[in-house]
Amino acid sequence: MKNSLGIEIPEYIEGIGNLEPFQGAWTKLNKGWMGEQTTPPPVKASQPHFNKMCETLEEAILKCNPHNGMTVSFHHHLRGGDYLLIRTIEILDKLGIKDITLASSSLTTAHDGLVPYLKNGVITKIFSSGIRGKLGEAISYGILKTPVIIHSHGGRVRAIQTGKIRIDLAIIATSAADVEGNATGSHGKSAFGSIGYAMIDAWYAARVVVVSDSMVEYPCVPPSIRQNYVDYVVNIDTIGDASKIASGTTRITKSPLDLRIAQLAAEAIVKSGHFNNGFSFQVGAGGASLAVAKFVRKEMVKQNIKGSFLLGGVTSVLVEMLEEGLFKSIFDVQSFDAAVSSSILNNTYHIEIPSGLYANPYNCGCMTNKLDVVVLGALEIDTDFNVNVMTGNDGTIRGASGGHSDTASGAQLTVVVCPSFRGRIPIVKKEVHNIVTPGESVDVLVTERGICVHPNRPELEARLIEAGLNIRKIEDLAVEVERFTGTPKPLELLDKIVGLIEYRDGTIIDVIKQTKGDLEALYEEFNI
Amino acid sequence: MKNSLGIEIPEYIEGIGNLEPFQGAWTKLNKGWMGEQTTPPPVKASQPHFNKMCETLEEAILKCNPHNGMTVSFHHHLRGGDYLLIRTIEILDKLGIKDITLASSSLTTAHDGLVPYLKNGVITKIFSSGIRGKLGEAISYGILKTPVIIHSHGGRVRAIQTGKIRIDLAIIATSAADVEGNATGSHGKSAFGSIGYAMIDAWYAARVVVVSDSMVEYPCVPPSIRQNYVDYVVNIDTIGDASKIASGTTRITKSPLDLRIAQLAAEAIVKSGHFNNGFSFQVGAGGASLAVAKFVRKEMVKQNIKGSFLLGGVTSVLVEMLEEGLFKSIFDVQSFDAAVSSSILNNTYHIEIPSGLYANPYNCGCMTNKLDVVVLGALEIDTDFNVNVMTGNDGTIRGASGGHSDTASGAQLTVVVCPSFRGRIPIVKKEVHNIVTPGESVDVLVTERGICVHPNRPELEARLIEAGLNIRKIEDLAVEVERFTGTPKPLELLDKIVGLIEYRDGTIIDVIKQTKGDLEALYEEFNI
Repeated sequence: MKNSLGIEIPEYIEGIGNLEPFQGAWTKLNKGWMGEQTTPPPVKASQPHFNKMCETLEEAILKCNPHNGMTVSFHHHLRGGDYLLIRTIEILDKLGIKDITLASSSLTTAHDGLVPYLKNGVITKIFSSGIRGKLGEAISYGILKTPVIIHSHGGRVRAIQTGKIRIDLAIIATSAADVEGNATGSHGKSAFGSIGYAMIDAWYAARVVVVSDSMVEYPCVPPSIRQNYVDYVVNIDTIGDASKIASGTTRITKSPLDLRIAQLAAEAIVKSGHFNNGFSFQVGAGGASLAVAKFVRKEMVKQNIKGSFLLGGVTSVLVEMLEEGLFKSIFDVQSFDAAVSSSILNNTYHIEIPSGLYANPYNCGCMTNKLDVVVLGALEIDTDFNVNVMTGNDGTIRGASGGHSDTASGAQLTVVVCPSFRGRIPIVKKEVHNIVTPGESVDVLVTERGICVHPNRPELEARLIEAGLNIRKIEDLAVEVERFTGTPKPLELLDKIVGLIEYRDGTIIDVIKQTKGDLEALYEEFNI
Repeated sequence: MKNSLGIEIPEYIEGIGNLEPFQGAWTKLNKGWMGEQTTPPPVKASQPHFNKMCETLEEAILKCNPHNGMTVSFHHHLRGGDYLLIRTIEILDKLGIKDITLASSSLTTAHDGLVPYLKNGVITKIFSSGIRGKLGEAISYGILKTPVIIHSHGGRVRAIQTGKIRIDLAIIATSAADVEGNATGSHGKSAFGSIGYAMIDAWYAARVVVVSDSMVEYPCVPPSIRQNYVDYVVNIDTIGDASKIASGTTRITKSPLDLRIAQLAAEAIVKSGHFNNGFSFQVGAGGASLAVAKFVRKEMVKQNIKGSFLLGGVTSVLVEMLEEGLFKSIFDVQSFDAAVSSSILNNTYHIEIPSGLYANPYNCGCMTNKLDVVVLGALEIDTDFNVNVMTGNDGTIRGASGGHSDTASGAQLTVVVCPSFRGRIPIVKKEVHNIVTPGESVDVLVTERGICVHPNRPELEARLIEAGLNIRKIEDLAVEVERFTGTPKPLELLDKIVGLIEYRDGTIIDVIKQTKGDLEALYEEFNI
């Protein structure tokens, strides 16, 4: 069967089940809440004055009924600095557990070390928003029998609430915790800020273990994770290296090209009709996106515009805008540098939020649905404005869905920023390798060679033309790019599906096919 | 069938279903979480930038699918000052809705006006922690066909989570709210403090309406109720009269008798072995209970004892102890005077908590399970230490279960304070009219005529004797009391069951029988 973007989706996949094809950003959600059921959270009952403290992570895991086929979940707030996920899988491996479903809110280069556990059958299925590095390569080269499932941040909450992901054991890294499991990421030696992605795991997992490298006197405040969800607590030496949170995609660019694009994007936003008192704003991670905030800030000061809320992955740049009074509040589901933590802790209007409130489509109003302007990146964008943030130009998995489709679908103005090409590789092109966010959710594309407006928004196009911006047809831009780069050779892919890209409503928007990589060479790197 | 206290419990009641007899405070809960299922919270999906604001409460209710047989829920944080419950029922009545199940966290004298709606079939079933005034009389005299169900605060959360109470519409009074339904009780002209009882309603109700008399700029902080649970928002003139929160049972006594008992109780606590650095403490509402805090405070200062947390219904007296540094934190599920609100708002260690975290037995650790010392009142207590806080000496419903059995079962030291008799009416007696809290959960009874220790706690009794306190056998005390009061005539009750007293685990600990009151006379008072 084909989905509404014309992509062939299998009806059924062994180990996953029946698939539902994507039919449009709001088609399924328009059916409203009559469509699906949630799954009941677990009943637990503990004895008064029960001691939750375990001496070691091993002890805690042993108390949590480890078994073959179990689903284990993690959050990725420590990003490249996370130690706990690999440590947990090592322990489960030593216990002889096989056939684990790994359900992490995302996976980073810190998780390259999972490759051997995919090879030896300890992990056989993965749900994640992002996959990168060697792990992305191994999966692209076909290391797993069952395709990985890529979800958005909002989609993950929906999947847990509807029982598509049933977590047996949630291991929650926290930078401060007390003996009952009240815990936070906002202070302690490994502070990482918001712990927004882990809250849904705490609510739904059959067993919840809070792990911390800083035990504090009862009660730990703020209780970002609350004791009534926590089965066991472990104090370990270190949960990870918080200095590695701010790396790669979370740093503001210094590239002149990206800065030029960011400035153009800020101009487009300012002239869009959405740049008004009370507007709300989010910038995604990576490339030019973060830099846009700096240029928007300048214009807000100049025009004396005061915004409502900032949303999403939060950097120090956004915290400064809050402190300057340019925005009334920040809603923080993920902090992109450790410095943000003290703001969460001390500023009432820097509000830590669960990912369900951030982006889950299945509730009475997630924050992304209230967003005015979002700026997002792209690895590729096609002439229908469909965006790929998941696979590289060689077809290999090396990105993350994140909040891309969540915010794009909710915002009044979705701006995608990217260079039109890089080196010899086109970024604006006729057809992208994979689609994460459907073109219907994108309003504007900003490149160094001009700005393209989605044909659904003629009034917006007119406004930007009137403002004197360089507005171009996206088809023309793609042709121009191809003149520079030459026509890229079509990727030679194998038939096997190694990944499913789930849209936020649970339908399948795309499949990721196996690439012709050398698994054996990869195994050699790991001595396996 | 008989429950473990020897009380005859029907196996089935029309309109309610099969009943499970009480078998001991921890018998059912010891089976752990394998015993029962929770019910799934609703799936909702709203459109981006959907406008939740309604012009009137009528409009909001009409949008929420009102229908015969529906369950409507409320919280009772405004206690005697609540306006919204009656207003809502009036609207539903005008819409012609019948056969409503009323599920309020409690009912007060503010709800006397419900009597006509019980007579005319608008309301046919009630779940509540407490019932008082004319409403209690009407129910005791048999106005309803189906018995009311009395639950504890923790039991209410359990009942909602397990689907025994299925809320179709939750009407949530808030003292400040924004257009998306983020809302709180901690500021605004009708500030009432913690909104802890309403959080479970927000999570589980099919439709949620936030009502406020003070709309604030987005976002309302703290978001005690969060927008992702809220369907509609209504701004009305007034939600109630917050000055009526602090009345009756929530004021500190000035009676010399009660003060004497409170002082004795404080002495017993101080000598109990539980009065140590890091101890946690709760005092219930009413009579001598609140006064105990004052005497305990004095001794803490004298002995330089620093406690861990204060729990429960919170008064200014407790806030002062927090501010003095006598306790590290307050966990606040309900504020007993409006002055507490500013502390919730401004003190990080004054933590507003949902009633599930407070007392729900079906989770990984409610606060009552971590409690060291609790002081509770009693309308009657029998020689097995079973406590009645529900029905008066004439058998009429005039009290509340509240957190009585929740805290009694969890605390290391449960102290019940009451006079041994009042006027010609014995309070310590051979047999109580109704049981809310089983004697096994009570450790010490403190009266003006001496202190009785539960036979399960011989080591505690020895400690108190050694401390020179006047320790007596409860049987002897009851005999002595009867010498003063004379043997009370047994109550003449009718066979009809008008109320079921549910223990926190959902089993039935007692039934309330119809009393010989004159319903017709009551109807005349209401001109119905």
